[in-house]
Amino acid sequence: MLEIVENLIAKLVNEVDYPQAMELFQKLSGGKRLRARLILTIAPSAPQAPLLGAIVELIHAASLLHDDVIDEAQLRRGVPSINATHGSKTAIMLGDILYSKAFSELTSFDSRIARTVAESVTRLSIGEMMDVGMAESFNSDRELYLKMLYLKTATLIEACAYGAAILAGKDADAHATYGKNLGLAFQIVDDILDITSDEATLGKPSLNDFSEGKVTLPYIDLFERLDTHEKERLIRYHAKVLDESEKKWIRTKMDTFSIIENSYTHARMLCDEAINAVGEDIALRSIIETVIRRSH
Amino acid sequence: MLEIVENLIAKLVNEVDYPQAMELFQKLSGGKRLRARLILTIAPSAPQAPLLGAIVELIHAASLLHDDVIDEAQLRRGVPSINATHGSKTAIMLGDILYSKAFSELTSFDSRIARTVAESVTRLSIGEMMDVGMAESFNSDRELYLKMLYLKTATLIEACAYGAAILAGKDADAHATYGKNLGLAFQIVDDILDITSDEATLGKPSLNDFSEGKVTLPYIDLFERLDTHEKERLIRYHAKVLDESEKKWIRTKMDTFSIIENSYTHARMLCDEAINAVGEDIALRSIIETVIRRSH
Repeated sequence: MLEIVENLIAKLVNEVDYPQAMELFQKLSGGKRLRARLILTIAPSAPQAPLLGAIVELIHAASLLHDDVIDEAQLRRGVPSINATHGSKTAIMLGDILYSKAFSELTSFDSRIARTVAESVTRLSIGEMMDVGMAESFNSDRELYLKMLYLKTATLIEACAYGAAILAGKDADAHATYGKNLGLAFQIVDDILDITSDEATLGKPSLNDFSEGKVTLPYIDLFERLDTHEKERLIRYHAKVLDESEKKWIRTKMDTFSIIENSYTHARMLCDEAINAVGEDIALRSIIETVIRRSH
Repeated sequence: MLEIVENLIAKLVNEVDYPQAMELFQKLSGGKRLRARLILTIAPSAPQAPLLGAIVELIHAASLLHDDVIDEAQLRRGVPSINATHGSKTAIMLGDILYSKAFSELTSFDSRIARTVAESVTRLSIGEMMDVGMAESFNSDRELYLKMLYLKTATLIEACAYGAAILAGKDADAHATYGKNLGLAFQIVDDILDITSDEATLGKPSLNDFSEGKVTLPYIDLFERLDTHEKERLIRYHAKVLDESEKKWIRTKMDTFSIIENSYTHARMLCDEAINAVGEDIALRSIIETVIRRSH
């Protein structure tokens, strides 16, 4: 089924009728296609499901292109980003091409689906703006962080689940709740892996988020547990390139307070809420397990 | 009527639910609102016309935000651009927010309108990519230049006229032809004004296009008329800051070969084609006269 989605993605990019778009698009790693998989899982026999999957993967690719420009990221999924190899101008315009192509195709869907997906793009753009703004200083506000996470990562996954449920004639709100919680859990696991994985697995330096100024959930948790002196030390390490002894101090403190375990517990709790929303479902449970257990 | 559009634009930006978006949006000059005016002129009594006008003005604003990042423009309509005052990251994300909000609202329209407007955004993004690519060397290919012009400027205006005609129950294809030719003429007049206007009127240095590497129609016309030695001289002046004597040489040569008059004739011809498509119509004729006769 995912092969049909891949073929549709290639067809849509070809239809754009600009050879450079296809050439550049092929340089992007497709990633895990979590969003398309989710749609196919919820609506396996809906005729429009593969097209919806292809559309949201175009949207996801467009958002990553713009994110990488915003974050000045040199790597994406272990390979050089388009902004690194072809400049930020090309990355911005390719993103606009993919976004608008996706919106063109959405017009053939039920308007509730089209609107929800389009609105999720507004939210994820706001989330990205918040993310950039919040990285300018040490943010210890957990609620604000979780709101940003919801906007930046969870809204599109929520929209996918909602749209797929409509296509399948299932409970759209329940599936939206599933998608939202899955998206939040996915991002929290991402934040954990940035701390626990090595450079080879991540395709970028470890503890990279914190060096970029991003105070993710484990750091917020850790901050709350530290004494005043240690709090100051953590803030001093914020938004700078860390040497090995500084990295070691952070990891040791995280071990002391079982921060990573707590973050996993948080992610697990979100996954339980996800499953509670839709009722026990082997396929949707399996997607959750992939997200929680992944190592990259 | 245009006031209703302005109020709707403010309402849509407010609905985005991110205070910074409204704050930034208010810094943008609204410009002439050509696209909204065109829609209201074609469909004055269609209930959805003001909303369509507001949507396309959001799209136009988004495209200018991204254009200014791509072109590294410091000024827009005589005031500092968002990328100059708030950085390119903010300009990219604000553009994404406005684009996606516009697409969200388009979902309440006839899907032919929604699809045509969305497709025009793909085309204008491709046009902008071509424009940037073509500025890297001296382009003397007139057909290629006109194709880029069509994609970058005319497609959205074409989509506006097409959509408004559908709302008004008028001939959509005829109005699309009108919009396309109006858009081309508009951009050619823009190219002319860059040469004939002074800095105070333009809000940027005169002959700025050529300094930025953009070989617009008058330069292509001029190039064709020059002898080999003069051709080389014009190419030497390409894509660099010009001093007064260099500017004077270009302007004198353009006078010698009546280049500006020829470009106006070209724009007039496009306007005649526009009017021929829709039949004599005082209001649509009046829009054309505003475009041809404008001085900035």
